[in-house]
Amino acid sequence: MEAEFVEWLRSRVAARSELPLALGDDASLFIDPANERLVTTVDLLCEGVHFRLDETSWELIGRKSLAVNLSDMAAMAARPRLALVSIAWPRHRDPMDARRLYEGLFQLADEHRVVLAGGDTNSWDGGLVVSVTVIGQATERGVLRRGGAQVGDRILVSGSLGGSLLGHHLRFEPRIALALDLNQRYTLHAGMDLSDGLSLDLARLVKESGVAAELDLRAIPISDAAHQMSQASGRSPLQHALSDGEDFELLITAPPESADAILRDATLPIPITPIGTIVEGMGVWTCDSSGARQRLPAEGYLH
Amino acid sequence: MEAEFVEWLRSRVAARSELPLALGDDASLFIDPANERLVTTVDLLCEGVHFRLDETSWELIGRKSLAVNLSDMAAMAARPRLALVSIAWPRHRDPMDARRLYEGLFQLADEHRVVLAGGDTNSWDGGLVVSVTVIGQATERGVLRRGGAQVGDRILVSGSLGGSLLGHHLRFEPRIALALDLNQRYTLHAGMDLSDGLSLDLARLVKESGVAAELDLRAIPISDAAHQMSQASGRSPLQHALSDGEDFELLITAPPESADAILRDATLPIPITPIGTIVEGMGVWTCDSSGARQRLPAEGYLH
Repeated sequence: MEAEFVEWLRSRVAARSELPLALGDDASLFIDPANERLVTTVDLLCEGVHFRLDETSWELIGRKSLAVNLSDMAAMAARPRLALVSIAWPRHRDPMDARRLYEGLFQLADEHRVVLAGGDTNSWDGGLVVSVTVIGQATERGVLRRGGAQVGDRILVSGSLGGSLLGHHLRFEPRIALALDLNQRYTLHAGMDLSDGLSLDLARLVKESGVAAELDLRAIPISDAAHQMSQASGRSPLQHALSDGEDFELLITAPPESADAILRDATLPIPITPIGTIVEGMGVWTCDSSGARQRLPAEGYLH
Repeated sequence: MEAEFVEWLRSRVAARSELPLALGDDASLFIDPANERLVTTVDLLCEGVHFRLDETSWELIGRKSLAVNLSDMAAMAARPRLALVSIAWPRHRDPMDARRLYEGLFQLADEHRVVLAGGDTNSWDGGLVVSVTVIGQATERGVLRRGGAQVGDRILVSGSLGGSLLGHHLRFEPRIALALDLNQRYTLHAGMDLSDGLSLDLARLVKESGVAAELDLRAIPISDAAHQMSQASGRSPLQHALSDGEDFELLITAPPESADAILRDATLPIPITPIGTIVEGMGVWTCDSSGARQRLPAEGYLH
């Protein structure tokens, strides 16, 4: 939806919530008077926007519809527990294909011990829409938020970035185990998942935190897919890594001693790369080899 | 979706759930090892199936999308707490109309002290789809289930039935306060909300409970709207009351002494009517004035 509407909706919701609810993050944290710490998230995928039926298997559509929500749970270092799935199914399609879609979703749910707690299935004359809600729980370590970055923090990213459209956006592994492990064993200040591209998502993180970021462009881990896309696109692999979106990797900030310990940790199953530093100010900046600072435009993918 | 697919999905979900999860009811109960009792439900509404844009205000579409979920909470006598809303918005429509939709939803949420805990808004080239998930909590009295009816129970229904299409399906009041109050003060054995018509929904309740129902057709509370529709439809007001669907009234069963006390209770804000008795056997039966039993066909509205 257009930015103005989303901004309106956010302000309306914020104005009405009497409860301590964290909005504007990847997921919402709901702290109940009875001391429950629920984390909730919902994502809706539409045919033609988030997937194309002529290019994607039914199983992978089901998988992705859950995976994007699990990535939101990872973003807050919350443990996903339940999923609810609602679907608007094109009447003219084979119901056997709906089973394939659910099988893809079930398989990923099993891998992450997520229970399907409810659903609503509808047939209609329109295209395929799949909406998944995930309910999770914060650990005793609390949740990661976008707004927690502090001056002096190192900026860390998992995996490699760019070129997601070549397949990663359908097959990515939500970084739940990594996020829970890091949040359990190290001091982290802020976190989110990369859904719209590093340049745009990092801009959001520093804005929420009231700080700026200095990014070391030579340090950005660029995926093979970004290199591959670059050969046809006329854009550099780095540009792909900065702005393609749907990387679904973890972006975290941590104080230097904690970041150093993470980078020395040989037990982590996924590479973690330091890509910059949190500084005073606003926005995302880069340094060239001469040390001159330049503002990085936020050019991610806006859904 | 077709019945066969829904049956498959139900069996697949049931086979995978290691947790004590109640499926097949209006909402799901999730009993967490940490002793939380979450009740969850999701409903997805599609343009052309659940509402028509040329006949309905945007506010009422938003209202209904939440109201159907609140009715599911009432069905289980659970207290709704959070709602998550995802939407596929037709790109060519005025975004101001989306605001109206949310205003209708917010107003009902406020009335029931439900907090909007998250959302996802998407534009696409298709029709309007609104999916709402509601998370609630069971009270210390536990939840009402479809499967709890016992032989000898009286069958009670709130309000009056039929003719919902004339407006009730958009403006109905979810029976949350009534369900919580009755469940708190009286012994109830089973409950559900009437979404697909009394004849079909009661058939489901007795099937889940492994019992039969004897319905007193002369006792069914028939709405004014059912009488009104009957004048043009060629069907009797009773037929409308039995099968129109979308009444969103409470259907409960209670042991005779409890039912009698409910029927004597002058503090209840909504009329409660006794419409029959739970007996041994299967299916839903009626008695004519001579005492002859007839099986009532289950002819509700299947979405």
